[in-house]
Amino acid sequence: MKTLNVGMIGYGFMGRAHANAFRRVGNFFDLEFQPILKAACPNDLHKEIAIAAAQAGKMILCEKPLSMDGKEGLQMVRAIEKAGVPNMVYYNYRRIPAVTLAKQLIDEGRLGRIFHYRAKFLQDWTISKDLPQGGTGLWRLDAKVAGSGVTGDLLAHCIDTALWLNGPMEKVTAMTETFIKQRKHTLTGKVEAVGIDDASLFLARFANGSLANFEATRYARGHKALYTLEINGENASICWDLHDLHRLQFFDHRDEGRLRGWRSIHVTDSDHPYMSKWWVPGLQIGYEHSFVHQVADFIEGLQSGKPAAPTFRDGLATDYVTDAVLKSAKSGRWVTVQR
Amino acid sequence: MKTLNVGMIGYGFMGRAHANAFRRVGNFFDLEFQPILKAACPNDLHKEIAIAAAQAGKMILCEKPLSMDGKEGLQMVRAIEKAGVPNMVYYNYRRIPAVTLAKQLIDEGRLGRIFHYRAKFLQDWTISKDLPQGGTGLWRLDAKVAGSGVTGDLLAHCIDTALWLNGPMEKVTAMTETFIKQRKHTLTGKVEAVGIDDASLFLARFANGSLANFEATRYARGHKALYTLEINGENASICWDLHDLHRLQFFDHRDEGRLRGWRSIHVTDSDHPYMSKWWVPGLQIGYEHSFVHQVADFIEGLQSGKPAAPTFRDGLATDYVTDAVLKSAKSGRWVTVQR
Amino acid sequence: MKTLNVGMIGYGFMGRAHANAFRRVGNFFDLEFQPILKAACPNDLHKEIAIAAAQAGKMILCEKPLSMDGKEGLQMVRAIEKAGVPNMVYYNYRRIPAVTLAKQLIDEGRLGRIFHYRAKFLQDWTISKDLPQGGTGLWRLDAKVAGSGVTGDLLAHCIDTALWLNGPMEKVTAMTETFIKQRKHTLTGKVEAVGIDDASLFLARFANGSLANFEATRYARGHKALYTLEINGENASICWDLHDLHRLQFFDHRDEGRLRGWRSIHVTDSDHPYMSKWWVPGLQIGYEHSFVHQVADFIEGLQSGKPAAPTFRDGLATDYVTDAVLKSAKSGRWVTVQR
Amino acid sequence: MKTLNVGMIGYGFMGRAHANAFRRVGNFFDLEFQPILKAACPNDLHKEIAIAAAQAGKMILCEKPLSMDGKEGLQMVRAIEKAGVPNMVYYNYRRIPAVTLAKQLIDEGRLGRIFHYRAKFLQDWTISKDLPQGGTGLWRLDAKVAGSGVTGDLLAHCIDTALWLNGPMEKVTAMTETFIKQRKHTLTGKVEAVGIDDASLFLARFANGSLANFEATRYARGHKALYTLEINGENASICWDLHDLHRLQFFDHRDEGRLRGWRSIHVTDSDHPYMSKWWVPGLQIGYEHSFVHQVADFIEGLQSGKPAAPTFRDGLATDYVTDAVLKSAKSGRWVTVQR
Repeated sequence: MKTLNVGMIGYGFMGRAHANAFRRVGNFFDLEFQPILKAACPNDLHKEIAIAAAQAGKMILCEKPLSMDGKEGLQMVRAIEKAGVPNMVYYNYRRIPAVTLAKQLIDEGRLGRIFHYRAKFLQDWTISKDLPQGGTGLWRLDAKVAGSGVTGDLLAHCIDTALWLNGPMEKVTAMTETFIKQRKHTLTGKVEAVGIDDASLFLARFANGSLANFEATRYARGHKALYTLEINGENASICWDLHDLHRLQFFDHRDEGRLRGWRSIHVTDSDHPYMSKWWVPGLQIGYEHSFVHQVADFIEGLQSGKPAAPTFRDGLATDYVTDAVLKSAKSGRWVTVQR
Repeated sequence: MKTLNVGMIGYGFMGRAHANAFRRVGNFFDLEFQPILKAACPNDLHKEIAIAAAQAGKMILCEKPLSMDGKEGLQMVRAIEKAGVPNMVYYNYRRIPAVTLAKQLIDEGRLGRIFHYRAKFLQDWTISKDLPQGGTGLWRLDAKVAGSGVTGDLLAHCIDTALWLNGPMEKVTAMTETFIKQRKHTLTGKVEAVGIDDASLFLARFANGSLANFEATRYARGHKALYTLEINGENASICWDLHDLHRLQFFDHRDEGRLRGWRSIHVTDSDHPYMSKWWVPGLQIGYEHSFVHQVADFIEGLQSGKPAAPTFRDGLATDYVTDAVLKSAKSGRWVTVQR
Repeated sequence: MKTLNVGMIGYGFMGRAHANAFRRVGNFFDLEFQPILKAACPNDLHKEIAIAAAQAGKMILCEKPLSMDGKEGLQMVRAIEKAGVPNMVYYNYRRIPAVTLAKQLIDEGRLGRIFHYRAKFLQDWTISKDLPQGGTGLWRLDAKVAGSGVTGDLLAHCIDTALWLNGPMEKVTAMTETFIKQRKHTLTGKVEAVGIDDASLFLARFANGSLANFEATRYARGHKALYTLEINGENASICWDLHDLHRLQFFDHRDEGRLRGWRSIHVTDSDHPYMSKWWVPGLQIGYEHSFVHQVADFIEGLQSGKPAAPTFRDGLATDYVTDAVLKSAKSGRWVTVQR
Repeated sequence: MKTLNVGMIGYGFMGRAHANAFRRVGNFFDLEFQPILKAACPNDLHKEIAIAAAQAGKMILCEKPLSMDGKEGLQMVRAIEKAGVPNMVYYNYRRIPAVTLAKQLIDEGRLGRIFHYRAKFLQDWTISKDLPQGGTGLWRLDAKVAGSGVTGDLLAHCIDTALWLNGPMEKVTAMTETFIKQRKHTLTGKVEAVGIDDASLFLARFANGSLANFEATRYARGHKALYTLEINGENASICWDLHDLHRLQFFDHRDEGRLRGWRSIHVTDSDHPYMSKWWVPGLQIGYEHSFVHQVADFIEGLQSGKPAAPTFRDGLATDYVTDAVLKSAKSGRWVTVQR
């Protein structure tokens, strides 16, 4: 097997998840290459590193969000596309088998006309006033490093999946809030204004005519990392949540009337996406496997010549939505999403 | 509308449930008769009253279990059948719409060959050692009045439903236990031996070749009145529980492979049993409605000449199973069920 | 017991629910009065009837929403308050025991500072293009009779509960949609433009600083009448849904760390609101009981001299929010709620 | 890091799970040794290999069940203990964090006196009559290789956990069944009698006075690998299932009355067993991780000198229970468990 040096932009516990995926992928997927992981960094350095890597002709996998805003992201996309190097952004939830199954059902046309899309990402780990900002494990609270708060950290995940499952978004009206206005900064030792958004909500209209409702917060007591999504179509609906990531809820109106109900699909069979590579039916996989799948798909994309998504360009589309969300939250107006 | 005097043998909060059903039935079902409720009594008087009523030519509805044991029950059945009076036993769970729907699915042959039947009735209200036996609300702890403990009180419900859904039972091996051996008696004021069974479990073989597993207890901390049943057939399975009585869980192996899952059917549509009489889809009914349905079915049985089940004879079949359970628990042997 | 003639403004299956409650209340609650139900009518006649009744000195219970808009509603409130007659609006979900329990927990200060309020009311019964508008059972699709679509029909419920649990709302940004633009009208036989909103979503800020997210639709395939609400406080969170109305989900951060989890409370114990009047623990009640509770509370309010809420004035507060929602949906701007 | 050669007796997809655990353990746990995996084999060769390895002074990890029966198992235990080599049996479910948490709660005395233990292991993969016996992936259907059917394969897991959580068992009454009596044999090509048990149920009494109910089957349509266990104590109850293995259900009677409910604990926090080694709260792990934990514990046992359980002697205790189950199923009598 040939080794493959891959630049990976990411950090902290995410870095561990990536490293784990790089080590494991070859044991479960038949691949020509064994990837070798390279350097890691936080959000505000993505641009410089990515552009330098592209110019050096290196392929690159980037942690999400792609960049601090669409303007930066566009520069990265141009550099990458000019250099022609393989590239991918780590919106790993696309590779949870249950979410991939949802995508298959949508692509097969089972839902019919889409009326509603609903997503939220709820956490509760920053409620304490005593939590400082900045430093190891807490850089996500520091706007200078993180860019935004939950908009870039959590909503970006919801948006990427939504664009993938439901197509482009047209416009948004948003609201953000910083519940705790001041926190001690770990590096300076001083109480400083908090620059990030603690919560971010928006309504949207998709190009396909459906209405959407998005929310992310780190102040939803009782939820650790509850990313949920639901899609309501004319003929069928789909529901999924990260706290039980190995299940997909599916309602099919074409089922016999008396016997219609939400099906709780335990996505662990060999005919479910990716699952033939793992154990036997009934035995669930976890969060980390989405990274193994992503690396496997990236390498298979190299082998087949069909690059795996989301590429940097796909990541840019998400950045454009988060830009619109932050702009709308500031202006109080509906904002059209750049495309 | 003609009035209909009906003798009803029952007691306590159950008496309230019956009275409520008698009052309400006419408002929701089109019936020729308005039933008028008569006298009530505890378990140990069923036989005398029922036989006297039958001899007087009166129709009779009896609380479950039919009698203290099969021997008594047989006398009641003979008296009732000799007199030719309409009769019914209050195994009301047959009339929960979700359970009735389960019966329909079985009768339609959707499950195929049955492999397993599983039922349990779990409560936790008698765990405290300080609870006395006997007296108002506590006669269920007094063996002289109640006959048996959970075997007649709770298991009898599980058995009646099982015989209805899965046919006759052939033999059983059982185990009972009295966890708290002595309790103060409310009437005598003295600490007396507890004669009832606090828990009762048995394994069984049905005539159709399926294996069964039954359990009832009042010592299952965390469960108030959790009657659950599950049937596993070759092609489909069914699951139901009393704590969410308006739902039926249904798994159909003939669903497309990738999309198989347990369906949670919210049994509130007008094409679900009894539900056209109530509200609109999504709005659930409760426990008491099973009694309204039972009275309605009884009266419709009178009108049509096709008596509604369970009759006293059906109730006797359940008594024969509880007799076998108690006998096996004593002897430690498999016991054949009388039929 | 004295009889009590009560004017009741309502219609259709709701009329049946009201009549049922009037008949039953005396059997389960100790009351001095037995209420006797009077006339019924659809939404667009509320004002005239209510004002006439008030002027005639009659007490009045009104179906929700109170009126076609806040302007009309204010006239009704003035007439009622001038006449000094007892009055109430049928936002019956306040009287679901699990919701009343949620109110108790909030009033006891268990949640602490509130960060988020989330409510949605999802149905799927109008998805078919073949469904006509107008006429029996379908007047809700006719804007001339119904006023608005889901905003007044479904969101109004969510708003009333929210104002009760979380205090006044300050401003909203909204979006509505009519998915099926034309439907045959039952009365004229012609295809006519549909004037109602099929879906209505809004973001809001409450006076207490919390952020909110509301949605109602009749195009959410798989949901019959799924009203859900969630409140996230600093110390605890609460979750409830109408499809399993007898349960309350409760998360308490003060529980021991390792053992924290959402508690599924089966609200059927005698120390739960209203439940001492019904059956024994574990035996659930249903939708209709909320109406019995409302009538009981209304009569107890008469007896005690402390009028039961929601009064017409409370109903007006909800009308002001729905006015703001519809106005924002039209203008695309944030709209301040009148108070 | 020192390498450690470990003999491992196991086979098929289980072999892959073991190999995976050996590779990964060093990346997530701080250990002095890196284990190197050796040979694998099916059930009927355990004894010869284990005894040979012990005599050669090698440490050994053995797939469950330990042996074909207690007689064989005792020989293995004697050989291992005589040689004094480290040894362990792969009852991996003890190392699911939620199950380990359950053990902690029991050891802390939170449940009080135990009344009931309930476990079942439900699968549905052998229902088809067309499935042959014997050969790759199907050796579990061949009694000559597998020893017994679900008794040794599935019930053994339930029993090991039960003995660990609830102490020794005294006696059992059991029932087994082979639903499909004949299947083509893959190796001979002929239709041959099926020698394994397809389903196995038993009632039991534990030494601590609690009553138990066990069941395993491969004929429960709709369940892939549903191992569930429940323990009811005087003060608290615990419930767990393998299909959502990252959750523990916990009911604590000492919670405030009005607010008691089953807590759904999402076992993904750093203060949950093993979870500090993995990701962040809310991100679940899967089946395979139980093997990593088991290897880590085994090596930590070597380092500390306190051998990790279950040892071969613990595995023998489970064999004695399965022996009693099979004997009772044959004789129809209660059988005392050898200890």
